[in-house]
Amino acid sequence: MAAHKREEEVAARLKGLGVEILADIKKHEVPTMHVPVRSLNNVTFNAHSNLLELGDKKSARNFMNVAHTKKFMQSILIAAKCKELVERNKTASIRELYYQLKHNIAHTEENTFEGQDESDPLIVDLETTLGVLREELHLKADDKGTLIGKIQIEDSGDVIDCSKLGRSGLSIPSIVEHYKFKKVEADYVLVIETAAMFDRLVEEKYHVNNNCIMVSTKGQAARGIRRLVHRINTELKLPVIAFTDGDPWGYYIYSVLKAGSMALAHESKRLGTPEIKFIGMTMTDIKEYGLEKVTEKLKDVDKKRISELMQYPWFQKKAWKNELELMEKMGVRLEQQALASKSLEFVAEEYLPDKIKKNILLP
Amino acid sequence: MAAHKREEEVAARLKGLGVEILADIKKHEVPTMHVPVRSLNNVTFNAHSNLLELGDKKSARNFMNVAHTKKFMQSILIAAKCKELVERNKTASIRELYYQLKHNIAHTEENTFEGQDESDPLIVDLETTLGVLREELHLKADDKGTLIGKIQIEDSGDVIDCSKLGRSGLSIPSIVEHYKFKKVEADYVLVIETAAMFDRLVEEKYHVNNNCIMVSTKGQAARGIRRLVHRINTELKLPVIAFTDGDPWGYYIYSVLKAGSMALAHESKRLGTPEIKFIGMTMTDIKEYGLEKVTEKLKDVDKKRISELMQYPWFQKKAWKNELELMEKMGVRLEQQALASKSLEFVAEEYLPDKIKKNILLP
Repeated sequence: MAAHKREEEVAARLKGLGVEILADIKKHEVPTMHVPVRSLNNVTFNAHSNLLELGDKKSARNFMNVAHTKKFMQSILIAAKCKELVERNKTASIRELYYQLKHNIAHTEENTFEGQDESDPLIVDLETTLGVLREELHLKADDKGTLIGKIQIEDSGDVIDCSKLGRSGLSIPSIVEHYKFKKVEADYVLVIETAAMFDRLVEEKYHVNNNCIMVSTKGQAARGIRRLVHRINTELKLPVIAFTDGDPWGYYIYSVLKAGSMALAHESKRLGTPEIKFIGMTMTDIKEYGLEKVTEKLKDVDKKRISELMQYPWFQKKAWKNELELMEKMGVRLEQQALASKSLEFVAEEYLPDKIKKNILLP
Repeated sequence: MAAHKREEEVAARLKGLGVEILADIKKHEVPTMHVPVRSLNNVTFNAHSNLLELGDKKSARNFMNVAHTKKFMQSILIAAKCKELVERNKTASIRELYYQLKHNIAHTEENTFEGQDESDPLIVDLETTLGVLREELHLKADDKGTLIGKIQIEDSGDVIDCSKLGRSGLSIPSIVEHYKFKKVEADYVLVIETAAMFDRLVEEKYHVNNNCIMVSTKGQAARGIRRLVHRINTELKLPVIAFTDGDPWGYYIYSVLKAGSMALAHESKRLGTPEIKFIGMTMTDIKEYGLEKVTEKLKDVDKKRISELMQYPWFQKKAWKNELELMEKMGVRLEQQALASKSLEFVAEEYLPDKIKKNILLP
């Protein structure tokens, strides 16, 4: 769907919510919203699409039920403010939204909101109820991440050649809906967990020598990064390869990039990239590249996290089961930067190109 | 000093360290390094320069003293690797440096390093001993922060026009020594604590309408940001204004940008920007702008931090004493984003321009 059509669709859905509630009132019925249930028993892994998905269960939020009344009022305030943001073509952080809506209710001692912990979950309710991303409601989270490589992006009238940004790269904003992809000459996208490894590969000109786009996530990938990677993959048909530390936290970064997250299962279809592949670090790398001396011992919190990952349906594939079992058995983790023990250039000149050439990638 | 001259100087100092030790050996004397003491009793605040400075106390690291032998060996390994990095024009993260140097000592069961906690403090020792920044030793920390506005920066052969990067902006790398400033049309630099406020001001085109450069620190300013702000201030003579949350953590971000940090007092002269001024958020803003309803209660950890800040000599200025006492008395903090309670545009159209016009800035 073209960007402006989608914007009209979002505005129409916001308006539709108000129209329905107004109709309830006119018919002297109780105003009611039907909000998809977001508890884990309504989240499933779709093995066909390889995405976490939200099921069909809904709960009714009823204005005349005293337990619901305040939440109902808050939901309507949020929806009205989002409608205003969309119509004015403004965006707001979820914290700004909270501050914008926090006020005394006239003739009472009550505030509309006591804290952001009251508004945040209702934003997610609104997203799921309307079937839209929060970015489409013009709300945003913090930004994070850097991009470099042969892609030209049109952003608010400027055409940015991301291969002409020295060693610095483009700062990825929290909202990338407005990005238009112009000339794209890269062959694939490499998504990198740590800023230090991103810097290493920039210094080695990996993106130039291997004609790829590089993206750093700096830890768990922010929503803007996940949406950008999804868009490059689906709109430009570029393959995506993830490169993280060899530990349960790195593997979970991959998992969220690929299948989405359980908390935001309703957004997997527009944030997840099921086609993404994983290059490393793997536990099998340790023997293959002689890295025994530069592993780190697992802590209890790491071990607990491994057991959790082992339960996830999308880690039941043979290659992943093998890696997770090996990690548990060896009791070690392996960082991206441990490759520096071979040489600074090793990762760019041997590790990554060899694995890609031989297609030694995990699903 | 021109960039290449400084590089030669750094290489010469690294070589000089080796030459001195070699001379000790040739004279059959005990090889010794003289390392500046970095404990707090050797750190002073210079009220004239407004910078934290390291004093003259030094301690001797002696190869024949069994308590020093391993550290001596480790220091020399680090210095030798830095010399190699400088000569090869490569950079490494401090984690990569650790991995590069970690190995078995031949014919023993001993490793050169057991963990990065052994190499990190020796890097600082080397910096202070030689009087150079770690970035000049070609070592780097993680990068963070975004820049946007009317400045053209030459980075590795690319001239980047930072006013033509849409809403995204330039990702600030950990090392900015190689940046060359080209055409600069901005009048001042606004350094912003939160990514969300940076995004707000980008959306309001504050940098365009007020002809300034905007930099987001995303929390405590990384070394790359502090160095960049310092360079823009000293080399281009642009004034710098800081804009943080109104809480002890925001005020400390300002303090580090201005006077340097105690842990890295030896680098204040090249990382600190004594001329920086502070625009907000202040406690006096609460009454001035009617923000009583959108303050947040201080937690115990905030209160403890306020008492600490009150001890710092550079917070003894009347305006700062007043703010800190007011914060303690009112028991609240005030976020940048609380300004959204007025309107989304308020910060860009009234708060910042008014304060700058009337010069209501803290020293």
